[in-house]
Amino acid sequence: MATWLENAWYVAAWDYEVDSEPLARTICGVPLMLYRKLDRSVAAMRDACPHRLLPLSLGLREGDSIRCRYHGLKLGADGVAEEMPLKSEAVNRRVCVQTYPVVERHRFIWVWIGEREKADPALVPDLWPCSAQGWVFDGGHYAVACDYRLMIDNLMDLTHETYVHAGSIGQQEILEAPLECEVKGERVYLSRWMPGVDAPPFWSGALRQEGKVDRWQICEFVLPSAVMIDVGVAPLGAGATIEKHDQGVRGMVVDFMTPETESTHHYFWGMARNFDTGDAGFTARFRQQQSGVFAQDVEILEAQQRAIEANPDLKLNAYRIDEGGTRARQLIARAIKANAEA
Amino acid sequence: MATWLENAWYVAAWDYEVDSEPLARTICGVPLMLYRKLDRSVAAMRDACPHRLLPLSLGLREGDSIRCRYHGLKLGADGVAEEMPLKSEAVNRRVCVQTYPVVERHRFIWVWIGEREKADPALVPDLWPCSAQGWVFDGGHYAVACDYRLMIDNLMDLTHETYVHAGSIGQQEILEAPLECEVKGERVYLSRWMPGVDAPPFWSGALRQEGKVDRWQICEFVLPSAVMIDVGVAPLGAGATIEKHDQGVRGMVVDFMTPETESTHHYFWGMARNFDTGDAGFTARFRQQQSGVFAQDVEILEAQQRAIEANPDLKLNAYRIDEGGTRARQLIARAIKANAEA
Amino acid sequence: MATWLENAWYVAAWDYEVDSEPLARTICGVPLMLYRKLDRSVAAMRDACPHRLLPLSLGLREGDSIRCRYHGLKLGADGVAEEMPLKSEAVNRRVCVQTYPVVERHRFIWVWIGEREKADPALVPDLWPCSAQGWVFDGGHYAVACDYRLMIDNLMDLTHETYVHAGSIGQQEILEAPLECEVKGERVYLSRWMPGVDAPPFWSGALRQEGKVDRWQICEFVLPSAVMIDVGVAPLGAGATIEKHDQGVRGMVVDFMTPETESTHHYFWGMARNFDTGDAGFTARFRQQQSGVFAQDVEILEAQQRAIEANPDLKLNAYRIDEGGTRARQLIARAIKANAEA
Repeated sequence: MATWLENAWYVAAWDYEVDSEPLARTICGVPLMLYRKLDRSVAAMRDACPHRLLPLSLGLREGDSIRCRYHGLKLGADGVAEEMPLKSEAVNRRVCVQTYPVVERHRFIWVWIGEREKADPALVPDLWPCSAQGWVFDGGHYAVACDYRLMIDNLMDLTHETYVHAGSIGQQEILEAPLECEVKGERVYLSRWMPGVDAPPFWSGALRQEGKVDRWQICEFVLPSAVMIDVGVAPLGAGATIEKHDQGVRGMVVDFMTPETESTHHYFWGMARNFDTGDAGFTARFRQQQSGVFAQDVEILEAQQRAIEANPDLKLNAYRIDEGGTRARQLIARAIKANAEA
Repeated sequence: MATWLENAWYVAAWDYEVDSEPLARTICGVPLMLYRKLDRSVAAMRDACPHRLLPLSLGLREGDSIRCRYHGLKLGADGVAEEMPLKSEAVNRRVCVQTYPVVERHRFIWVWIGEREKADPALVPDLWPCSAQGWVFDGGHYAVACDYRLMIDNLMDLTHETYVHAGSIGQQEILEAPLECEVKGERVYLSRWMPGVDAPPFWSGALRQEGKVDRWQICEFVLPSAVMIDVGVAPLGAGATIEKHDQGVRGMVVDFMTPETESTHHYFWGMARNFDTGDAGFTARFRQQQSGVFAQDVEILEAQQRAIEANPDLKLNAYRIDEGGTRARQLIARAIKANAEA
Repeated sequence: MATWLENAWYVAAWDYEVDSEPLARTICGVPLMLYRKLDRSVAAMRDACPHRLLPLSLGLREGDSIRCRYHGLKLGADGVAEEMPLKSEAVNRRVCVQTYPVVERHRFIWVWIGEREKADPALVPDLWPCSAQGWVFDGGHYAVACDYRLMIDNLMDLTHETYVHAGSIGQQEILEAPLECEVKGERVYLSRWMPGVDAPPFWSGALRQEGKVDRWQICEFVLPSAVMIDVGVAPLGAGATIEKHDQGVRGMVVDFMTPETESTHHYFWGMARNFDTGDAGFTARFRQQQSGVFAQDVEILEAQQRAIEANPDLKLNAYRIDEGGTRARQLIARAIKANAEA
């Protein structure tokens, strides 16, 4: 049984990654290719010509159609044959490639993996910070050689910041703050409230002042595979609470983990903020800094994946800090089971 | 069951590739080594010393024999031990390495894969253009990472020239010409007759004139794995027909696909011509140009092999243009079955 | 069933390879890490944090303990948890990583692979030349991509020197000298006595004179996987015998082969000598020369391993010269069987 949920929307690409030239990407084990049509909507299809399986991503775009670069079979954006290799051969409209439902929303291109007739656009996870008024959002796509659930574990507990990201966003107080974990429907929340701490370098820079702050981290897991993290600091005494905290600087980190294979995934990462929204330099500097932070995570996560494979007699253990990841994995496993029974 | 026919002759090398130093090459899944003896005939044997399996291709040649470079076991060209590692140990003539029947013909070194007693040199495929009077022949060896049958498909239908080789030998008329497919005994013929077309660049250069020509392509598959293609153009009105066409310039492309593993093969390619036979510069320019054409095929064929492996739920489909390849695969499958029953 | 003996001491590293920073090394299929404590004794543990399996070799040393670099679980040198990731979580002393018995002896760090309670330091093989008075010893660690038993075969028969090491230590007389093979308890001896031969370049240099010498080679296999070789030459007529030979120059080559996987091993090699013991330059030159000799063996052994895998229908054969290796493999197989029955 697959380790991911089928009958769900997965992020296949950022909106800026898909243009008229086809993009090849394997999503949940399925080799896909995506391209934009003239009306800018996106077509997704199996990356294999129905004739001799050459990847269609190597093909030639013609209007909204794609022509295979081996023998020239031409397929419409609906996947159906429009022209056979030999011009005199009548077009057989049963010749077709499998297409996949696509939705473009929250700056991402989503594809539906599973039974086509269940593909309801209303089921796209609500990653609201990516497209909300008054927020700016920017980020990237990274290929990571580990099971997508290891990244979920990583994001649902930020204890690791202290060791993995010492010097940027880590601080000892993270280890001391009490954790609150809560499951609401298909979401898991893991909260940390750190009142009266020194802001770490990134956050004092965002706040434009040194001194004591209240700091919060609220991780939210959303099926099938998103984590949004409400992070920020407010000056001590400004009245911020875990429920309401717009007195300082606030960001929403948005992460989507799309399985590629059992042991690799596509990591879509971005940060939305509602401060300094007109400062493009802040956005660019943050993006640059984030690459360094992310490289630290990748080193750890890929080493963890290799260690899991090298120690097949050992299993992952969960302590108090892992409650968020544990609950998220339970939601995934339960949804996979429910889907299999349906 | 193997995807190739046993009890057949396969090309192991060009005549110019084998000399006194051993050549290591895996043929139909069997690691072999080949070398020339003093009388210039070729010996072929398993590339593993019967003692501790070190590749004999690393060994030292002595007269017509080979001495293993690990402990010095010396084997004759007949594969039988001539000297043991310890000089005082009596030679045990049951110590031997498996040898393989070899024939040198049509510029190639052929080895017999299968039951030794059935190795009849008369069964070597008649690749006559490689050694015919009045023709010059030249070509190369290429390692290609795909099932050998994908190359047979490729050669038995030249529709792909239009897309894969646009700019050299491809032209739109190839897509319009009617196809004739015929099976005669153990051979398949696929013919295209293109009367009154413009010659593509390569052929107008060969003919030394521009203007309308009659063009032909006659692909001939020969068991176990050869394709010969009769190609050329004649000036319009010179009287060329699909049956007889020596009025212009004519070439015979000779291809032999030797399986290495299930997903890789040795591609032996050459072209014979009966025009400008004294022009060594033409030969050299053609060889150079052919490298570029061939690189285009390799890109496509290796992408196709990877796509086949990445989409195990999909199968190759055949349309009208594929009749030649389909018939060739049927001949191979039928011969494998007959061989298994015999 | 593993190809190596469990319940035995294996060399994991040279004494100089292990310091306070952890060293990661896979021993007998088990990923381990080793480090020195403040008292300079060595701790060995599974290279996977009991929490989320991140390699502990990436961790941070604190006193004699190690702190995982992912979430900060702190483990003592005894493998038991000393601090949980969340500071407020009570330490659960059942949280622990598997540790391995370690002995430092004969310049090597030994780990016990098997049942912990049977780990008796008295069972460490007596590689006396590495730590004997009046001898100097030096050597290195090499990763070799072959079954450790192929290296044992190699060392238990020095016939190969003639072909593999022609020009340094090989000579034709090795092929002519009679062999004596003897098994005593858990040891195998293979002796060659070459009276009145010309010394090969290395040995005439060591002896500081040309001319006829008596030469000897006595290979001794010791369970689970060591080979010591008593080698040297004495001037002809000086009275050296195979039993007693301190009349010239004498060295003891010490080799330990530690399996890493079924098809790779760690090769620990060194040479002890009791002549020119104060000449550091001789030691350095010898070490340098030995790299070249060793590279010749690696080329052969890794080619042999690949050939074994490429020719699964063939098996290794043993002739007279292989008696030493054959007996050593029998001792190993017998010990594995006895261990399985116990």
